[in-house]
Amino acid sequence: MKIIIAPDSFKGSLSAADAAKAIERGIKSYMPDAETVKVPMADGGEGTLDSLIAATNGKKIQVTVTDPLGAPVEAMYGIIEPNATCIIEMASASGLCLLTEDQRNPLLATTYGTGELIKHALDAGCRNFILAIGGSATNDGGAGMLQALGMKLIDTSGQSVGTGGAALQYISAIDDSKFDPRIAESSFLLACDVQNPFIGLHGATRVYGPQKGATLEMVENLESYMTAWADIIGAKTGIKLHEMPGAGAAGGIGGAFLAFFPVEMKRGIDVVIQYSQLCDHLEGTDLVITGEGQIDAQTASGKTPMGVAQAALKYGVPTIVLAGSIGNGIEQLYPYGIVSVHSIVNSPMSLQTAIEKAAELLEQRAEQVIRTFAPKYLHNTNLEAK
Amino acid sequence: MKIIIAPDSFKGSLSAADAAKAIERGIKSYMPDAETVKVPMADGGEGTLDSLIAATNGKKIQVTVTDPLGAPVEAMYGIIEPNATCIIEMASASGLCLLTEDQRNPLLATTYGTGELIKHALDAGCRNFILAIGGSATNDGGAGMLQALGMKLIDTSGQSVGTGGAALQYISAIDDSKFDPRIAESSFLLACDVQNPFIGLHGATRVYGPQKGATLEMVENLESYMTAWADIIGAKTGIKLHEMPGAGAAGGIGGAFLAFFPVEMKRGIDVVIQYSQLCDHLEGTDLVITGEGQIDAQTASGKTPMGVAQAALKYGVPTIVLAGSIGNGIEQLYPYGIVSVHSIVNSPMSLQTAIEKAAELLEQRAEQVIRTFAPKYLHNTNLEAK
Repeated sequence: MKIIIAPDSFKGSLSAADAAKAIERGIKSYMPDAETVKVPMADGGEGTLDSLIAATNGKKIQVTVTDPLGAPVEAMYGIIEPNATCIIEMASASGLCLLTEDQRNPLLATTYGTGELIKHALDAGCRNFILAIGGSATNDGGAGMLQALGMKLIDTSGQSVGTGGAALQYISAIDDSKFDPRIAESSFLLACDVQNPFIGLHGATRVYGPQKGATLEMVENLESYMTAWADIIGAKTGIKLHEMPGAGAAGGIGGAFLAFFPVEMKRGIDVVIQYSQLCDHLEGTDLVITGEGQIDAQTASGKTPMGVAQAALKYGVPTIVLAGSIGNGIEQLYPYGIVSVHSIVNSPMSLQTAIEKAAELLEQRAEQVIRTFAPKYLHNTNLEAK
Repeated sequence: MKIIIAPDSFKGSLSAADAAKAIERGIKSYMPDAETVKVPMADGGEGTLDSLIAATNGKKIQVTVTDPLGAPVEAMYGIIEPNATCIIEMASASGLCLLTEDQRNPLLATTYGTGELIKHALDAGCRNFILAIGGSATNDGGAGMLQALGMKLIDTSGQSVGTGGAALQYISAIDDSKFDPRIAESSFLLACDVQNPFIGLHGATRVYGPQKGATLEMVENLESYMTAWADIIGAKTGIKLHEMPGAGAAGGIGGAFLAFFPVEMKRGIDVVIQYSQLCDHLEGTDLVITGEGQIDAQTASGKTPMGVAQAALKYGVPTIVLAGSIGNGIEQLYPYGIVSVHSIVNSPMSLQTAIEKAAELLEQRAEQVIRTFAPKYLHNTNLEAK
């Protein structure tokens, strides 16, 4: 029996790679000779870099760059085959996770460090990029990233403006003469699940600003700065980001990519599936086991188990989901190839206990599920005597 | 697909019959045309009467009898086919569950009501009896039951003694001239999982007295009364109960049966399996689903899921267990035909929540398990296109 093990991380307890190992242990304890293939997954958010590195035996490179508030930070990017594709998790350089709650301030936060990561990878020879842009601390419309890559953003006196969302108000022109020419020779794939426009009621600032630390007053100011920035980009490039779907992703960095980069946007899980080579393994597979911390009807909107099941369904392979917690509405997942859903929780217990024991519980559940799926594979009962 | 649904009760939340209904709903929601047979189970303890009545479409009869402390109580017994077999749960007349914690007192508690139930069933024409003797409040060596059935227990002045464990000290002789003669024409099957002798370190009083409310001093007194009672029975019948396995069951009522009744003792689950006609349904069955509130290594020592699996294994049928809580050591159950074990808990939650939502959780889990067991039965995915 050939089984693909393709879980997401279990947030707060297990990385996708560790989850895959636990599931494999559970399978092997019942079926030692099963052919298992571990393909750690992610949905384009946190963990995407680690999962793709693990799934493809890629390498990680550490670089000191500028954090959202201008301090140095050790960030990571990855290089995987084919074609020395560079994977950048924006959060590694410009993430909310790098700041304390008190430090959150989108007037100050910059995407400069993300631009530095791109530059470092360009220097290393990479020309294919995957950008996972979830979890940003910024609302600077990608201005910092552009600055790091040589774009000059000039105020009315001809001086370069500073960084952060507040600096957008001073930009009066864009000088792209020093913008890194290797950008145009490269391809950029944005793992992006949001369709928010650059500005407006559903724009970057109004929807995501508050969770990045913006007060109501800051939101209104940032919205006007972002509008001015979109106007200036429009004047420079002819591209009107204002209402463009996806331009509002990650504090508007989506818009900067759309305006100045050769870019394609794709659902995060589809990017991960493509580069993890999941589909290469599906031929001849009997079962896919995926998993995630929480599964419910929302999972149908592009989370990992859904994407994995859709890929498997194309090969006629059933998918079983292991989850920390099962919410309502999972029957909506069945038509997409998810056969069944099982919680790793094996008794009444607190969330804290479930998190602490996640690896052990996941291993046990995987074993029970595979015993149920393949009861005829009975190396330790007499049932085959039937 | 033919599926037998044979759970025990989920203590504190679901009767075995209700558990079976919930499991059936879960199966039918995936597999509406499955042939399901509900056989509610029990292990010879609480719920045995209800389960056997439900499994066999038997009838219940209500009788006013004497409770452990002499008050009237509405007790139940059942009559099932074949042969108008009478099922008595001793706890219904003489159970600890009938008393408050303060009322527990094995010096006073009597099995008289259990004798009255037998007499009522004899009057109703029953000659075959199943006795489930768990949960008794008594430590009277079965004296009360014998008294209710016409046995005279006489003190040195020739007067009948009273009831309760303390009265045993006054018995000097047994007059069986009025002992109900229909007893000898009947058969009694005791559902009994304990092997305790009548007296001694592992005897009825020392092992079970304390949980029935006996203080240390009461235990010592009762032990001496029980020893005298065993001596008197031995003198009368030639049967030495003192060290006889099973004689100490249910405060020594086991000994009274062994001395004065045509009796056979069997493991509770085996009695239930025999009379529930479980085995009649096993031929041609694809899967048995059983269940219980808690499952762990202890389950191997004669609890319901174990007995059900052993019966199914004889027919080559795999058994899956659904449990409220899964403890350690379940791998010990595999050799007996248990294929896999699943908790109904679908998220981190309190015991209280699991109990309150047990029916819904059990139904959901049964559906997911049957989806995993029979993924090729796919009425709502495209997987069959493979």
